[in-house]
Amino acid sequence: MPSELRKDPVTDRWVLIAPDRGARPSDFLTSTTRPPVRGICPFCPGNEDLTPDPIQVVEGPDGKWRVRVIPNRYPAVQVEVPLRREAAGIYDRVSGFGAHEVLVETPDHDLSLWELSDEDRARVLAVYRDRLADLRNDRRIRWAMIFKNRGALAGATLHHEHSQLLALPQVPLEAKARWEGARAHYARKERCVYCDVIAFEKSEGVRMVDESRFFVAFCPYASRAPFETWILPREHVSHYMLVTQKDIEDLSDLLGRVLRRIDGALESPAVNFMLHSAPLQEPESPAFHWHLEIVPATLRYGGFEWGSGYYINPTPPEDAAAFLRSFT
Amino acid sequence: MPSELRKDPVTDRWVLIAPDRGARPSDFLTSTTRPPVRGICPFCPGNEDLTPDPIQVVEGPDGKWRVRVIPNRYPAVQVEVPLRREAAGIYDRVSGFGAHEVLVETPDHDLSLWELSDEDRARVLAVYRDRLADLRNDRRIRWAMIFKNRGALAGATLHHEHSQLLALPQVPLEAKARWEGARAHYARKERCVYCDVIAFEKSEGVRMVDESRFFVAFCPYASRAPFETWILPREHVSHYMLVTQKDIEDLSDLLGRVLRRIDGALESPAVNFMLHSAPLQEPESPAFHWHLEIVPATLRYGGFEWGSGYYINPTPPEDAAAFLRSFT
Repeated sequence: MPSELRKDPVTDRWVLIAPDRGARPSDFLTSTTRPPVRGICPFCPGNEDLTPDPIQVVEGPDGKWRVRVIPNRYPAVQVEVPLRREAAGIYDRVSGFGAHEVLVETPDHDLSLWELSDEDRARVLAVYRDRLADLRNDRRIRWAMIFKNRGALAGATLHHEHSQLLALPQVPLEAKARWEGARAHYARKERCVYCDVIAFEKSEGVRMVDESRFFVAFCPYASRAPFETWILPREHVSHYMLVTQKDIEDLSDLLGRVLRRIDGALESPAVNFMLHSAPLQEPESPAFHWHLEIVPATLRYGGFEWGSGYYINPTPPEDAAAFLRSFT
Repeated sequence: MPSELRKDPVTDRWVLIAPDRGARPSDFLTSTTRPPVRGICPFCPGNEDLTPDPIQVVEGPDGKWRVRVIPNRYPAVQVEVPLRREAAGIYDRVSGFGAHEVLVETPDHDLSLWELSDEDRARVLAVYRDRLADLRNDRRIRWAMIFKNRGALAGATLHHEHSQLLALPQVPLEAKARWEGARAHYARKERCVYCDVIAFEKSEGVRMVDESRFFVAFCPYASRAPFETWILPREHVSHYMLVTQKDIEDLSDLLGRVLRRIDGALESPAVNFMLHSAPLQEPESPAFHWHLEIVPATLRYGGFEWGSGYYINPTPPEDAAAFLRSFT
């Protein structure tokens, strides 16, 4: 069965049923996720023929690759699938059209993004921009997100440092909530809500974690998880793909510092991060502000979170920020 | 710091900052949740003085307790806190008012809900009804959910079989999506969407798992997780608290069978379940249909789920249902 998006008829929540990634029922007989693959790492230099042909390769001054973007071998969605929206009895479904890429962020099997040199990390951040700009050319793709699952507790199945890009023909629930929430604020106040938040966090100070010339980092007021940290550009920009080389160099520096603070404070936790840019086909907007959300994976969620959509966070962001500031 | 609800200014998502449950920053130095408590079990007979005074106790014919409802020792919210809504600079917060109870479902330390006798499980299901009916008398409480986290992977910290009840002065995001989604369907069609779903699932058959005189069980079309299973009453009822003794006896029977199928098929997985009833202060409604959602905890969620609000499910519900039907 090819993968498909299916809509819950009550809540309008879509689910990606992606059997190609799995897994017959009997594969769920253990209650754990697949462990990191032992043995040969498909992301290491020399093993390039174990992965599909690359979409983008960035080389260093020595002519060797530094960043390598490849199609996901177990794609949740594929550009080769025709985009088809159809009824399924009383339900709605959309074919598994989209893009699912893997961004191998270093040739070194054991380095994390925050252990890379500022220059190498800047190469990674430039690839994020390039991929979003490239995907925008496919008018069927309305939304894309680059995200990282580092560590088994954060959902990773491979150790070698990488991020993923998932692009869809529709703007998903959470992204729509951010986009429409920001637009509603703008409609009422003619100001960007994220710009308001940056100004307030800077004036309050208690949740600030770090800052650089062009960026700020803080624990958000309604942090969903302990030590959740956001990075935003000081200047209003909706689309990450508009970052300049100067922005990228400054962001590389700050992102490295923030991730090292989290790594130090929590002793190498598993980490998720998500890069939230405006929906791909939207023009630059005064209402939305791109940002990076970093969420250390320290908690397990249960029935309350499933059923309410609320999170219970035992660590006030003010405490988390103070603790992060103390790790330099 | 007492606990409080804080609102994300963009998405209107609330987060419960509940430091009483925690945990100083240094307690997050390991990336795992607290392990089940070793040694003395506070839920076992003989240790009743280790827990706060019970809210409700149900005894068996022998005069010994079978179900015991107690206030959570580490409450996320408390009825003793005055309900206060206030601005916090540019943000919004609500005091940590509400109820957080623990329902100890058996005196036996090692029995699961599905290993109880039908009669003992019916006692538990009757307590669910009693608690919801009782909390409804506090007009400040607008919403309550009974949920179970069984097993460490599902977020449990204690082994002894129990569920929790969390009641809040507002209807949270997911519950509102269900309630308003059902009402929108009713406004358009003058039919309950859940009644439509039940009729369709029965006619299709491929996602049916089991049924009894008054209830049906199936894997929903847009299952968020492998082997997600829903149980609904055939007859339309919005409020679980309206179940009759006959309903409860029949439900006990079916719930036991369905949980044993899941337990057999996935070899004792961790499990979450959530009992979704209409918001507490609402009158009985033709639009909403109470239901029980059972979600085995087999997957870890990562950046994609965090950032999109979509789930990637590798097991089509048709395959899951067929596999569950084969375990009798």
